[in-house]
Order: sequence, then structure tokens, then C-alpha cells
Amino acid sequence: MSALKNFLENFIPSITSDEIEELDTYWNIRRKIKRHEWLTAPGKKDTHLYFIEEGTFKICYEIEGEEVILGFGYPDTLLVDFPSFISETPSEFYIQALKAAKIVGIKKSDFNSFIKSQPSLSDFWRLTLERATLELIEREIDLLTPSPQVRFDRLMKRSPNVFQHIPNRHIASYLRMTPETLSRLKKH
Amino acid sequence: MSALKNFLENFIPSITSDEIEELDTYWNIRRKIKRHEWLTAPGKKDTHLYFIEEGTFKICYEIEGEEVILGFGYPDTLLVDFPSFISETPSEFYIQALKAAKIVGIKKSDFNSFIKSQPSLSDFWRLTLERATLELIEREIDLLTPSPQVRFDRLMKRSPNVFQHIPNRHIASYLRMTPETLSRLKKH
Repeated sequence: MSALKNFLENFIPSITSDEIEELDTYWNIRRKIKRHEWLTAPGKKDTHLYFIEEGTFKICYEIEGEEVILGFGYPDTLLVDFPSFISETPSEFYIQALKAAKIVGIKKSDFNSFIKSQPSLSDFWRLTLERATLELIEREIDLLTPSPQVRFDRLMKRSPNVFQHIPNRHIASYLRMTPETLSRLKKH
Repeated sequence: MSALKNFLENFIPSITSDEIEELDTYWNIRRKIKRHEWLTAPGKKDTHLYFIEEGTFKICYEIEGEEVILGFGYPDTLLVDFPSFISETPSEFYIQALKAAKIVGIKKSDFNSFIKSQPSLSDFWRLTLERATLELIEREIDLLTPSPQVRFDRLMKRSPNVFQHIPNRHIASYLRMTPETLSRLKKH
């Protein structure tokens, strides 16, 4: 079974194997991204929903001339430029490969017609959005938390996989601390 | 037409008047909240989705002994303890009335059975989640923005109504600046 099919099966407990097969056929865009290549650039519209088969990504935004990291993508997770996908307008987000990557994508129009033709599967998007909402609330609390130790512990609890896939300096940037502070916290 | 019906009509362009009537009957919990009273306290579960008819609220969280404001509620907007509603577990959020309020609410179980029986209206929850996701991303960018002027401008553009309904000192706390800085920025 492909990684995407496995992911769908775990993500939507009620999905049937026929539905997995059908959803899989819509997920028909295959892309290879080289290390440091951008999947999408600031000011561009990208309304695909991607699934990462191999490689890692950082999702970024430039604020007052400084790059800030809003999130990461790694194997077996979804990758999407949410503002662009939801609003269908260009966004200032950019997504860059940290390691050579292989992704599969579905067009928003295909995704929507699929969801409408299979109402039982509209759960897929609802679950994705509910998880994104909860994660963004956790992230908001992270950013409001003064203690680096608490910020580190919260991310470790919430997304332990980040630490397996993403280099320290990018995690440190995401957590708003120096790489030295992150190294010290990881040793404890 | 009630404020809730008006809200639903504007929120879901495709909704029919029969669907509005039916959704309205499920929205059958009416509560009056006194000024400074808590709608929900830290560590409590509240799985209702509310609509504010009158009054204002702050949505808070305590971090390292300090209250941080995560958002506001004011007339004609939805009010929900997202972590509690989505996960159906207690959350550390608390919601307090800043002004005496009247709200109407729908139980999550009623809301879910309603959405399932009327698939055309599952759009309601999808739209709510999509807007919440986009707002939380905007909020994440706010919190990562060093300039108080830029944070102020972003909120003014996104939610001008906040400035009509919510006292300065709470907005200042939400924007992570002193009330004096906020007053200065409002005068420009």
C-alpha cells in the first residue's frame, strides 16, 4: 500500500478501501523538489493540497526583512499553503525544501468535486481543518510563552517527529530561541 | 429576522430559508451572562457553539501566572472554546464577559446530527473552520511582528469592529503593547 493510502486509512477511521482507491486516483500530481528549491514563492498562488512521500520542507514568511518559520513538512504529512488554498488568492507564504523531496498533490477543484460527490468523505477536510485549528492555537500559546524550556517541552510533546526530521537551527528559529539554547534544552 | 438568522444568511450564501429555520430551532440554549462572569473556566469542558446577541467577551489563557488574551467576542459573532469543542475534553481556556451579555447556543451533538442530516449545510462548519484557520495564521504573524505600529495596522485592517466593542486596555494586552502605545497609535 502506498504511503498516501496508509495515511488516509489512519487519518479517516471510517474510510472504506473503495473510497481510498478513488481518492488516490485524484491525487495525481507528482513532483520532485530539489534541496533548497521553492515549492511556492511569496506572492504566488498555489491551490494544491500535497502529501509528502520523501523529504522535508519549511513554511516561511518574511516579516520586516527577517524570515520567520511558520511550520515544517516531513514524510507522511500534508503540506499546503493554507491562505492560498482557502482563499484562492496569492499568499506571502513560501515553502522551501530542506531536503530533496517527492510529493503528490491534488488540485483544489478535484478535491472539492470529490468531497461533494462523496459526502461521507467531507470528513477528510473537516478533520484536516480541525487539526490545523488546534495546532495553530497551540502555536499561538507557544509564541506567548516566555520560557524557552516550556516552549521546547510543548513542541516535544506535540510534534516529537519534528526533532527527528528537521535540523536544529530551523527548529530553534521556529521556537524563537538561539540554536545554543535549543542544544542545551535537548541535552536535559 | 433574529440576529442569528441574519448571521447565518450572510455567512452561508447558499443557505435556503427552510434550512435557516431548521438550524435556528436547534440553537435552543439561551444564556444571560453578567459583567465579569465566566462563561467557561480553566479546566472545564464546554462543547457548545455560541452566537452573541448582546455583550462582549474576552477569551483567555493563563501562561506562567499571567493572563494572555487570545481573542474577543462581540455581537453578531460566534463564540466557542475551540479546544474543548473539537476535542471534547476540558480546556485551559476561559471566557469572561466584559459587558453583560445574551448568547444563544447549540449543543455539539445537535450540531453534528444537524450537519449529517443536511449535508448541504456541512458548509457551515467548514467555513467556520476555514475562517478560524486563516485568522489564527494572521494572529501567528501578528505575534511574530516586532513593530507595534504594524501589529496595530494589521488588526485594524482585519477586525475593525474590535476597536468599536472592546476597551483599549484589553486590545493593548491582545496586541502585546502598553495601553499608552495603543492610544498613541490610535491618534495617528
